[in-house]
Amino acid sequence: MARVYNFCAGPAVLPEEALLEAQMELLDFNGSGMSVLECSHRGKEYAAVHDECVANLKKLLKISDDYAVLFLQGGASTQFAMVPINLLVNGQTADYLNSGAWASKAIKEAKLIGKVNVAADCGKEIPTRVPSEKEMKFTPGAAYVHITSNETISGAQYKSFPKTEAPLVADMSSDFLSRPFDMNQFGLVYAGAQKNLGPAGVAVVIIRKDLAGRVPANTPTMLKYTTHIENNSLYNTPPCFAIYMINLVTRWIQKMGLENLYKQNRAKAQKIYDVLDSSKFYKATAVKECRSDMNVTFRLPSEQLEEMFVKEASQQKLKGLKGHRSVGGIRASIYNAFPLKGIDTLVSFMKEFEKKNS
Amino acid sequence: MARVYNFCAGPAVLPEEALLEAQMELLDFNGSGMSVLECSHRGKEYAAVHDECVANLKKLLKISDDYAVLFLQGGASTQFAMVPINLLVNGQTADYLNSGAWASKAIKEAKLIGKVNVAADCGKEIPTRVPSEKEMKFTPGAAYVHITSNETISGAQYKSFPKTEAPLVADMSSDFLSRPFDMNQFGLVYAGAQKNLGPAGVAVVIIRKDLAGRVPANTPTMLKYTTHIENNSLYNTPPCFAIYMINLVTRWIQKMGLENLYKQNRAKAQKIYDVLDSSKFYKATAVKECRSDMNVTFRLPSEQLEEMFVKEASQQKLKGLKGHRSVGGIRASIYNAFPLKGIDTLVSFMKEFEKKNS
Repeated sequence: MARVYNFCAGPAVLPEEALLEAQMELLDFNGSGMSVLECSHRGKEYAAVHDECVANLKKLLKISDDYAVLFLQGGASTQFAMVPINLLVNGQTADYLNSGAWASKAIKEAKLIGKVNVAADCGKEIPTRVPSEKEMKFTPGAAYVHITSNETISGAQYKSFPKTEAPLVADMSSDFLSRPFDMNQFGLVYAGAQKNLGPAGVAVVIIRKDLAGRVPANTPTMLKYTTHIENNSLYNTPPCFAIYMINLVTRWIQKMGLENLYKQNRAKAQKIYDVLDSSKFYKATAVKECRSDMNVTFRLPSEQLEEMFVKEASQQKLKGLKGHRSVGGIRASIYNAFPLKGIDTLVSFMKEFEKKNS
Repeated sequence: MARVYNFCAGPAVLPEEALLEAQMELLDFNGSGMSVLECSHRGKEYAAVHDECVANLKKLLKISDDYAVLFLQGGASTQFAMVPINLLVNGQTADYLNSGAWASKAIKEAKLIGKVNVAADCGKEIPTRVPSEKEMKFTPGAAYVHITSNETISGAQYKSFPKTEAPLVADMSSDFLSRPFDMNQFGLVYAGAQKNLGPAGVAVVIIRKDLAGRVPANTPTMLKYTTHIENNSLYNTPPCFAIYMINLVTRWIQKMGLENLYKQNRAKAQKIYDVLDSSKFYKATAVKECRSDMNVTFRLPSEQLEEMFVKEASQQKLKGLKGHRSVGGIRASIYNAFPLKGIDTLVSFMKEFEKKNS
């Protein structure tokens, strides 16, 4: 069977050349006579992968040596707890900006650990959006400010990041490496890999090293950023294969160029938004200024039509277009590796579907 | 290049047929037109893998419905904290048996969380061993008793498990699924996958469901077993590919038969121990009754000879024989998938090396 157009929100489509390389060398990695799945995490074969992957990420985002690049397990969901466990100490308050379902999860988790101020809240608005800077009421001396750069479910995305006095922390799970950004603006950035980066099973965490020192001494070893900084993410056995795949994907991004990829991502999203804007049948979920380049969300006139849309699209190899179960509607997740041709196929399908059903 | 004999302690050798199947379908899983790396964890393709994997593990170990089988991230190192966070509550004491480096790590972590009694301690003895039942001084009303079924570094293994009043908890990372055992004897068993089960990046946790209810309400969501029990390990995105590989490996174990595999494992280890016992050149590290079937550890007359041994073995495609950096010596890790032919090659090499150098 030919490969389909995979609009899944994550795990999601990966660059075909990365998959082909992984396939080719799956039984014999780099002439070692072992699969990369079988290589010791302390051996020279895996060490080369691990170190190249850190270096590629540092290069792609021009990350200075003030920061550590970590590969941690447990996804963004574990980071929701690790961030406050490590940074929200000494009775301080953390400011959180609520932009939707994922920001809400981060807030709920932080409240288990310490004092939280929701500094702006548009998490339940429809059309969906992210807070504007003038709405944000920050706490003087806050431990940090937390944002969710792209809400995967609602399809709302920050187009610029707020200027804050406290260190800015971002969950970038669904738009990390889809566009350049200045890491110096942030204290900590984390991202589950399974969107633009690689398979599920690893989160990339970039942390300004001085911030990690706040952690209370009696914190479990695996939950301390200092553990992983001091051991280059090799305190325990890392998820080697997931990191190996990220490495192949970062090579592909280097070849494409992050700035070019960003341009391409915007152009891909715009093609779908253009259909939405020129139609009375489709309705975009997010306000115009906050529309995500990664997750294009929209509604049809009825849930019945939405169901038909998903079903008929699927028959044309357009897979995974159903919106998140919590909100319904349609969602086209179009990460870095989603091909242009798939966008054109969707756009044609949308126009045709509208003609037939309006 | 032909595949080598991989004696690495973990990540470690996997069944070649599992690797070949993964390779074959890496770009198109089960006719879906997607890689298994790209399939949504909420989609039917991955759901079939996940559910089969749970079912295979339950069947292989005859696990009753009183227990939940979970796939968690963070390895055994995270379980060192999760076990006491969830089970060591209300001021109770947990009994730990110290059999070596890995038991010590579990003890150190539990002490961060609550009261710990080291109920027997032979963790630093050489020759290495596990505690005998008559040495164990259990706490009346203990929250649980924790053991490390096989010490990967020292090569000492429990041949039978202690009878305890409190729920028995075992770190089985390096011998899980290498032999049958009665899960009803245990309250909780956990194992990092990267020995007998699959690649690094997932730990299998089997927990008697009633024990999970003890957890304090303000525990971070990802650290509560209840979260993962209630969501069939799908609260967040699981490490799908690692679980897919475990599923392929459990299919292979079912075909081989767990009892047969156990017999084969004992026979494989015995061949090496026979060389050690008939030699004055080599010296086994563990006492005879506690010798591991998984990690055969021994010393040579000098560190210089050990270095030569590792180097010359490597030239004959016998890879990864160097002992753990903390203890030195030689370690042959011979998990389920390690082939008989590799054992014979090692045995011949050992005899020849002894002849040349004694």
